[in-house]
Amino acid sequence: MSDFFIPKLAVVGVGLIGGSFALALKEAGLVGEVVGIGRGRANLETALKKGVVDAFTHSLAEGVAGADVVFLATPVQTLAKVAAEVIPHMKPGSVLTDGGSVKAEVICAIEPLLREDIQFVPGHPVAGTEQSGAAAAFASLYRGRRCILTPTSRTDGQALELIKSLWQAAGSEVVVMTPEKHDRVLAGISHLPHMVAYALVDAVANCGGENENILNYSAGGFRDFTRIASSDPTMWRDIALSNRVALLEVLETFEHSLAEVKRDICQGNGEALYDFFLRSKQRRDAIV
Amino acid sequence: MSDFFIPKLAVVGVGLIGGSFALALKEAGLVGEVVGIGRGRANLETALKKGVVDAFTHSLAEGVAGADVVFLATPVQTLAKVAAEVIPHMKPGSVLTDGGSVKAEVICAIEPLLREDIQFVPGHPVAGTEQSGAAAAFASLYRGRRCILTPTSRTDGQALELIKSLWQAAGSEVVVMTPEKHDRVLAGISHLPHMVAYALVDAVANCGGENENILNYSAGGFRDFTRIASSDPTMWRDIALSNRVALLEVLETFEHSLAEVKRDICQGNGEALYDFFLRSKQRRDAIV
Repeated sequence: MSDFFIPKLAVVGVGLIGGSFALALKEAGLVGEVVGIGRGRANLETALKKGVVDAFTHSLAEGVAGADVVFLATPVQTLAKVAAEVIPHMKPGSVLTDGGSVKAEVICAIEPLLREDIQFVPGHPVAGTEQSGAAAAFASLYRGRRCILTPTSRTDGQALELIKSLWQAAGSEVVVMTPEKHDRVLAGISHLPHMVAYALVDAVANCGGENENILNYSAGGFRDFTRIASSDPTMWRDIALSNRVALLEVLETFEHSLAEVKRDICQGNGEALYDFFLRSKQRRDAIV
Repeated sequence: MSDFFIPKLAVVGVGLIGGSFALALKEAGLVGEVVGIGRGRANLETALKKGVVDAFTHSLAEGVAGADVVFLATPVQTLAKVAAEVIPHMKPGSVLTDGGSVKAEVICAIEPLLREDIQFVPGHPVAGTEQSGAAAAFASLYRGRRCILTPTSRTDGQALELIKSLWQAAGSEVVVMTPEKHDRVLAGISHLPHMVAYALVDAVANCGGENENILNYSAGGFRDFTRIASSDPTMWRDIALSNRVALLEVLETFEHSLAEVKRDICQGNGEALYDFFLRSKQRRDAIV
């Protein structure tokens, strides 16, 4: 697994993502002290009681002081602001990393703030549940899941290896790619499906007319398909805006695919519909 | 439960739908003999071995002779053709019913073929799995699921009550509505989601460019969301074409919803996005 040991880990935002990371590394015996930094006192107390953190503070400066690794696990829209407050107080030689679901915009905002003597390894663990908060954190969240790291030209190899080892110790398969590729991939496999799910629920709710809520008839299939439309609106607003360029591109690709289906239905072109559905089925079956 | 007893039930198309209906009624002690009618010998032999049917034949005329209830459970596109062959051989006073996922078009095609002395109760059990064939049939498939019956002005109340009782005995909650409403509701909660899922897999496969299959990065969320894109292409081609009018209408409603999301992303209108996502989340949470 790993030869690294982190005497002090600071986790900013002790929710599902940050808390589970801390728990996984504790379980792996790879961290000494974990300091949790956040705003909500009740959540931090829960984290302390559950053993997610060994201490907590509301002060970013205080929390990151002396830490070897600082993990930013706050909402994607807040990452740059938090980084700006954290960086001046970080220990020389320490490593900053994050778990934001969008990378290019976040990196653009954080890189100019960096100091010569600290490293930044941008990351994104592709995991999560509908739950949130420290109470929802668990050590095995990342087991068998992918973690994407997106180093830039400024990231040194040793820092990358360190963060990579930590995620591997948490049970993740680590994939390294450019921030741009990350954002394109995630726009396709995650951000677009969420937009589609929200729009689908909206459409089906609207298409019944005034006195008829078609959603009342929905069965298991619809509920499963739209599960992700129950995701946190704030988080998805932030992701949609942060990854705007890549997301608009795949949205357009999707509009074209849907227009093709619609045209074939309209023209009664059964052969084309069959081919389209079969191709999608084969592609989908190939990823299972 | 029910005071009805069906001495002889004929099931045309002994697959998941037809086979499970037979098994459920047998388990409820509501049928005497079940005759299965189909083309594939191996499938019919499986049905016989599993006790789904007590006898089988390839001949529609022979199979439905003397039957009190005839259940058509073949693909939606074939229903009218099968009905045309079956009706001349049905016993006076017997009842024809079906399980087709689209109703208005099927009824339009079958009603003119009916005889004075037989009744037709169009139906649609909203249930299914990705499996098919008699081997996949099981008695509890319909338990807790909805069955929609769509009688027309020609359907008499007694025949409707009989078929209703059978589905209730199979464990279903029976809902009665017009064929047009059925098709509108199903277009929204089932047909549209399938079109969207097929289009989504297509789009994500296409948006990576030539050398990059973004689908390879898909995680659990994407796989769950696109599960229905693994459905049978033939069946969905047929449904899409049979319910063309209602489906095109909801497709358009969906395009508008998606265009709204896209416009808000494009304009960076976070407040509107948040409101949209929240409204969809609340609507979706309300149906769970």
